[in-house]
Amino acid sequence: MNTACLFADWDPKPGFRLGPKDIEGQLTYLGSRVWRNPRIKYVEKEVPKPGPTEVLIEVKACGICGSDVHMYRAEPDGYIFYPGLTAFPCTLGHEFAGEVVDAGPLAINKRTGKNYKAGEPVCSEEMIWCSVCRPCADGYPNHCERLQELGFSIDGAYAKYIKVDGRYVWSLEELRNVYGDEKAFLLGSLVEPTSVAYNAVIERGGGIRAGDNVVILGGGPVGILACAVLRRSGAAAVIISEPSRRRREMALALGATHAIDPKEVNAADAVLEITKGMGAKLILEATGMPSVVWPDVERIIWEGRTLNSTVVIVARADDRIPVNGEVFQVRRAQVVGAQGHSGHGTFPRVITSMATGMDVSCVITKKIGLDEVEENLKLLNTNPTEVKVTLIPS
Amino acid sequence: MNTACLFADWDPKPGFRLGPKDIEGQLTYLGSRVWRNPRIKYVEKEVPKPGPTEVLIEVKACGICGSDVHMYRAEPDGYIFYPGLTAFPCTLGHEFAGEVVDAGPLAINKRTGKNYKAGEPVCSEEMIWCSVCRPCADGYPNHCERLQELGFSIDGAYAKYIKVDGRYVWSLEELRNVYGDEKAFLLGSLVEPTSVAYNAVIERGGGIRAGDNVVILGGGPVGILACAVLRRSGAAAVIISEPSRRRREMALALGATHAIDPKEVNAADAVLEITKGMGAKLILEATGMPSVVWPDVERIIWEGRTLNSTVVIVARADDRIPVNGEVFQVRRAQVVGAQGHSGHGTFPRVITSMATGMDVSCVITKKIGLDEVEENLKLLNTNPTEVKVTLIPS
Amino acid sequence: MNTACLFADWDPKPGFRLGPKDIEGQLTYLGSRVWRNPRIKYVEKEVPKPGPTEVLIEVKACGICGSDVHMYRAEPDGYIFYPGLTAFPCTLGHEFAGEVVDAGPLAINKRTGKNYKAGEPVCSEEMIWCSVCRPCADGYPNHCERLQELGFSIDGAYAKYIKVDGRYVWSLEELRNVYGDEKAFLLGSLVEPTSVAYNAVIERGGGIRAGDNVVILGGGPVGILACAVLRRSGAAAVIISEPSRRRREMALALGATHAIDPKEVNAADAVLEITKGMGAKLILEATGMPSVVWPDVERIIWEGRTLNSTVVIVARADDRIPVNGEVFQVRRAQVVGAQGHSGHGTFPRVITSMATGMDVSCVITKKIGLDEVEENLKLLNTNPTEVKVTLIPS
Amino acid sequence: MNTACLFADWDPKPGFRLGPKDIEGQLTYLGSRVWRNPRIKYVEKEVPKPGPTEVLIEVKACGICGSDVHMYRAEPDGYIFYPGLTAFPCTLGHEFAGEVVDAGPLAINKRTGKNYKAGEPVCSEEMIWCSVCRPCADGYPNHCERLQELGFSIDGAYAKYIKVDGRYVWSLEELRNVYGDEKAFLLGSLVEPTSVAYNAVIERGGGIRAGDNVVILGGGPVGILACAVLRRSGAAAVIISEPSRRRREMALALGATHAIDPKEVNAADAVLEITKGMGAKLILEATGMPSVVWPDVERIIWEGRTLNSTVVIVARADDRIPVNGEVFQVRRAQVVGAQGHSGHGTFPRVITSMATGMDVSCVITKKIGLDEVEENLKLLNTNPTEVKVTLIPS
Repeated sequence: MNTACLFADWDPKPGFRLGPKDIEGQLTYLGSRVWRNPRIKYVEKEVPKPGPTEVLIEVKACGICGSDVHMYRAEPDGYIFYPGLTAFPCTLGHEFAGEVVDAGPLAINKRTGKNYKAGEPVCSEEMIWCSVCRPCADGYPNHCERLQELGFSIDGAYAKYIKVDGRYVWSLEELRNVYGDEKAFLLGSLVEPTSVAYNAVIERGGGIRAGDNVVILGGGPVGILACAVLRRSGAAAVIISEPSRRRREMALALGATHAIDPKEVNAADAVLEITKGMGAKLILEATGMPSVVWPDVERIIWEGRTLNSTVVIVARADDRIPVNGEVFQVRRAQVVGAQGHSGHGTFPRVITSMATGMDVSCVITKKIGLDEVEENLKLLNTNPTEVKVTLIPS
Repeated sequence: MNTACLFADWDPKPGFRLGPKDIEGQLTYLGSRVWRNPRIKYVEKEVPKPGPTEVLIEVKACGICGSDVHMYRAEPDGYIFYPGLTAFPCTLGHEFAGEVVDAGPLAINKRTGKNYKAGEPVCSEEMIWCSVCRPCADGYPNHCERLQELGFSIDGAYAKYIKVDGRYVWSLEELRNVYGDEKAFLLGSLVEPTSVAYNAVIERGGGIRAGDNVVILGGGPVGILACAVLRRSGAAAVIISEPSRRRREMALALGATHAIDPKEVNAADAVLEITKGMGAKLILEATGMPSVVWPDVERIIWEGRTLNSTVVIVARADDRIPVNGEVFQVRRAQVVGAQGHSGHGTFPRVITSMATGMDVSCVITKKIGLDEVEENLKLLNTNPTEVKVTLIPS
Repeated sequence: MNTACLFADWDPKPGFRLGPKDIEGQLTYLGSRVWRNPRIKYVEKEVPKPGPTEVLIEVKACGICGSDVHMYRAEPDGYIFYPGLTAFPCTLGHEFAGEVVDAGPLAINKRTGKNYKAGEPVCSEEMIWCSVCRPCADGYPNHCERLQELGFSIDGAYAKYIKVDGRYVWSLEELRNVYGDEKAFLLGSLVEPTSVAYNAVIERGGGIRAGDNVVILGGGPVGILACAVLRRSGAAAVIISEPSRRRREMALALGATHAIDPKEVNAADAVLEITKGMGAKLILEATGMPSVVWPDVERIIWEGRTLNSTVVIVARADDRIPVNGEVFQVRRAQVVGAQGHSGHGTFPRVITSMATGMDVSCVITKKIGLDEVEENLKLLNTNPTEVKVTLIPS
Repeated sequence: MNTACLFADWDPKPGFRLGPKDIEGQLTYLGSRVWRNPRIKYVEKEVPKPGPTEVLIEVKACGICGSDVHMYRAEPDGYIFYPGLTAFPCTLGHEFAGEVVDAGPLAINKRTGKNYKAGEPVCSEEMIWCSVCRPCADGYPNHCERLQELGFSIDGAYAKYIKVDGRYVWSLEELRNVYGDEKAFLLGSLVEPTSVAYNAVIERGGGIRAGDNVVILGGGPVGILACAVLRRSGAAAVIISEPSRRRREMALALGATHAIDPKEVNAADAVLEITKGMGAKLILEATGMPSVVWPDVERIIWEGRTLNSTVVIVARADDRIPVNGEVFQVRRAQVVGAQGHSGHGTFPRVITSMATGMDVSCVITKKIGLDEVEENLKLLNTNPTEVKVTLIPS
């Protein structure tokens, strides 16, 4: 089968030391310090054979994630932009849905409690948590000490087939029943990024109560999908701040009640005006530029009358955020970090929400074939027009 | 001004002992043990003058609550049906909205943080919590040790005017901005019963996460309003079980996704079929007959695959519920009791939810004048056709 | 190696139907409906060989649990008393500690994040959760849909050696550092029952805040160990009700502040007097006779001034508990069921608590050899003198 | 009666604008911007008469708080150091205990639910929350929108008598029963600062589970008292970092298991070594120099294996804290701000904890008379030898 595979050269920067879990020439937890000259090759590989607890999935849809773009993007010195866990060459692609075509005898379908059967529509977590280390045993798979990642350090879904351990696979039967095959797979490929948003605002942000206001800073896919999740959860005002008009319109279509352009208006002023001075119970930092938006964040908390505001940091960034502790004392507020999508009942709740009205499929603004992966990785690097570009392999 | 006032005779049953907070001939915490021969009289009273921290409200709408019906209803031996805190004679009526017409100099409007001004549209809590006892100091006003109740032990709102301490009053300005005067007051008169539902399922039941299923047993006003609150909070399936067709239809109009008639189908069977065997995260007992519905409750938990189900008991009942502890052990489930509507940010969240789409005004199925109170108390006692009968005093 | 093995005859009672996970002649989830004529045989077995993710443990101490006694105990009609998951013949024993003597190449030590090495002192969970089903994926291993149990359906630790998948094993290095080998293993054999108590009162009961009162009904090992956990957690009054004087004294030695004999005094009266009318934040039902103690439970809640009381049902019982919902409404109280000991960080917190002062080893009142297992199973059936009888295999 | 009263001149700095709740010449929320030339005068005042809901208390002990020191301390330009709510002249003193000598007819004793009687030993909250504004109504009195403060904007307890509304008063009867009069009052004067610590680590920090490690940065009274609260709550390692040896020793006496001198060792190194690399579940910032200690805070979280660490900011500071969001994402951690001591059942739990073993009276290192207040305010400003200096007025 044909695959879109990322290659790069193992060429550690000066001063790089192999970490305890790194493997010389193969795998590192600090990608941007090691990998150079990234390039996509379309490689012919054998269809994988599922092991005893694995399923073989025919990929029906696979979104391009910002991380994919960042793995392919080279800095001027040739090193890749993506800073995290990577092992190359690797078939990219981790936001996917497809149909089970084969399954090991011990691969269990969570939906039925029985063996997987061919024909089951499914999606998968991307985080390959070990189930054994202390974080896994304690119930925090997103923080597994022995994590692998599909499409980063293990072959992903820019291919006709992918094999995954049944532990990470979730049925999309509910979606197929409601939406039919094609749309079920499109929505299914959005379960992973929607779960990142859900994990951030519900599991880590503590959720909201119906009638609370929320603010989303940044209209990338996670920010937009968070609008859908929070409106669904009963938010009164769902205010997104995002410079791109297309993204603002999409956020409004999916659940935002107000969308502001931070180039035109001050976000804090706008939030305080829209909420008549109440502010927000939950503020999602999804811009990746926390120190830039922080003055607005603290003004919303300080000047808003809502106590107990929670700021959730979901976008990755190297910034130091200049936090004024007194704001958080006087307003009884908190800052939490969010990572991942696994565990805590998130995947199944996202799927059920999608099956009962939370149709976020309009996030997919472009569909491509396998041979168009490279050009679209390039495009997404420079052009924010598309929100989610999705590969339809067949 | 004219008022609809309940009179009854202080005639304690044999064996009744005056409780520590009871007042001979005036007030008791055990109404049905003391008060006999209830009757409504239309009494002319002085318009009350607000004290320094009080507001005078012109009543614009006041719903008839089941408790009102039960205070007026006499058992064959003449004793009233309502078992709780009562002091007669008393103007009934506690689900009301109106407009501030006068205010003491120290009555503070929570909306503005400043003195109340005439013209503010408002509603009020019914529970007159003391703010001083240990439950109040600890943050549990619904369990005040020195509770008084508007329309039960203090003159209520079946009248042109009512005075209330500003502590219990909430602005309806948000509703007026969206809906205009008339509907703002109708919705405002539903804030109290909606808050009873909200307190039950959100504060006491722990709420849900988007994608969870819920079951509401009993389609009285609180059950129906709970459907609206839970759908708004992101429930996937909102299943109500209620024998009256009109009430089922109203529940469906307000947010239920499925309505079943327990005379026709077994509730547990229906829930397990609708949810494809998943069961429910939250089950609200709002029938007042918990021992009758309990076998269904435990089957939904036992046979459903959802762990962590919470059963919330909101309806009052003398039953002993035959709980099988093992069901709650094996399924990681719990039973909680719910009482009241005050505190925990419930009133303002209900008002804001109403102002942003949760329009529950269709619950009001009949509007009456002050002189029709008595006949409607009688009617509601015997005829379940109307859901909420609301007095429009002017 | 020699093992103490339970044999019984597969002889289903009339009306028994094989369940979906039962295996004819081998395994059932309803032991007491199937197994007849239990008897202990001392059987010579091969030392097991650990698979790739397993460790081989030399057993150093293994407590006898009430479940062991109930598997061996026959009713007059010959059927075993224990109602749960069982597969016979099976080496009994699941409350054990020992030393790793061999390990598969993929067996990971949670303490180090690396492979297990010989010499590591360890204990193990008894619940063999699958890590794959929906409850496991959602973080609730105690409610695994494909559970197996060490010493019930898989060979246990009444033997010189036992093999266990590394997933369930926890290091006792902290205990060895503080207490030395011998005591580390004794305490280690108590980690499992202490974790049952911890899971009940902390994870399921929601814990307490320093200064809260608690009541423990029943002084079996779990009740006594709960006293230690709750005193350690800052309880003001820890009141245990237990008829056996020896057990009351042990509870007092381990953390109870008051011990009452329910044959001599009424438990509710005593609790209300000791707490000067405050009652208790947490009440643990550990008697197995919930309907007997329930009137006291509800009086403590109803007459005590503490709101928000949580009743945790940890002992198994077939009773129907006659719950009065109004008590739970008026007092803002709840009932929760507790099962298991896995997950939620419980095992490691129990071990660390033991290593930093929570020495519960005095619970072990008798040490025996392997050839004394049968007679002690008999003895424990009839004689409540011993609290914990522990096998020292060597 | 004689009182130690703070006088200062109303002399706003250039650019100061009267805030919405400020009163020209009398009261401001921004003390250091307005008040100049602070001086203590010993002023003879009338014994106050309690209003209907107030009690008159004979002061038996009153601690000097850092805020008292900061109100008296003048910057080189003569403005006071304390930045918050102040109204001068004002009798200082808010950490006090005493005996009720008179009570209004409506002043209710939370202990009995009845009127206050002379002879009741009591202490009081310092935060005079209004019970009416939205934060108060929602259950967050520490964030009252109309706050007054005893000893800051209302006459305090550096005097023979003080009157306080019964709403804020808590009985010390439990302490008197255990410790006798003298010590009950000493401990009683520590209830307020202990409640500040308890509110920070338990209510705002979310508490701990028995077996968790904690780190306290800064050994002022709140840091030291937090050691006592957290050890009582079951912490395994309680590690305090504090440069003063006397304070380290006191922390060790009260519950710390390890005390480190940050001038001698790196705090992060020490914590990681003591905890064998586990780190801490809860970290209390009580130094007032958060940006100085932050690198250690983040290293403890980043390098420690404990997930879900919560950093509680309790000390006030103007610093901007350079937070690295990724640390909080990868380690599932959070930062919360803590303010105040009222509500949430904190005062009564602190009193009961003191009555059942948490004797923190050794924090009081010096007792003084009323005429020694001024010299000790001076002394505390420059000399960190004393931990808590307590006025014994009689």
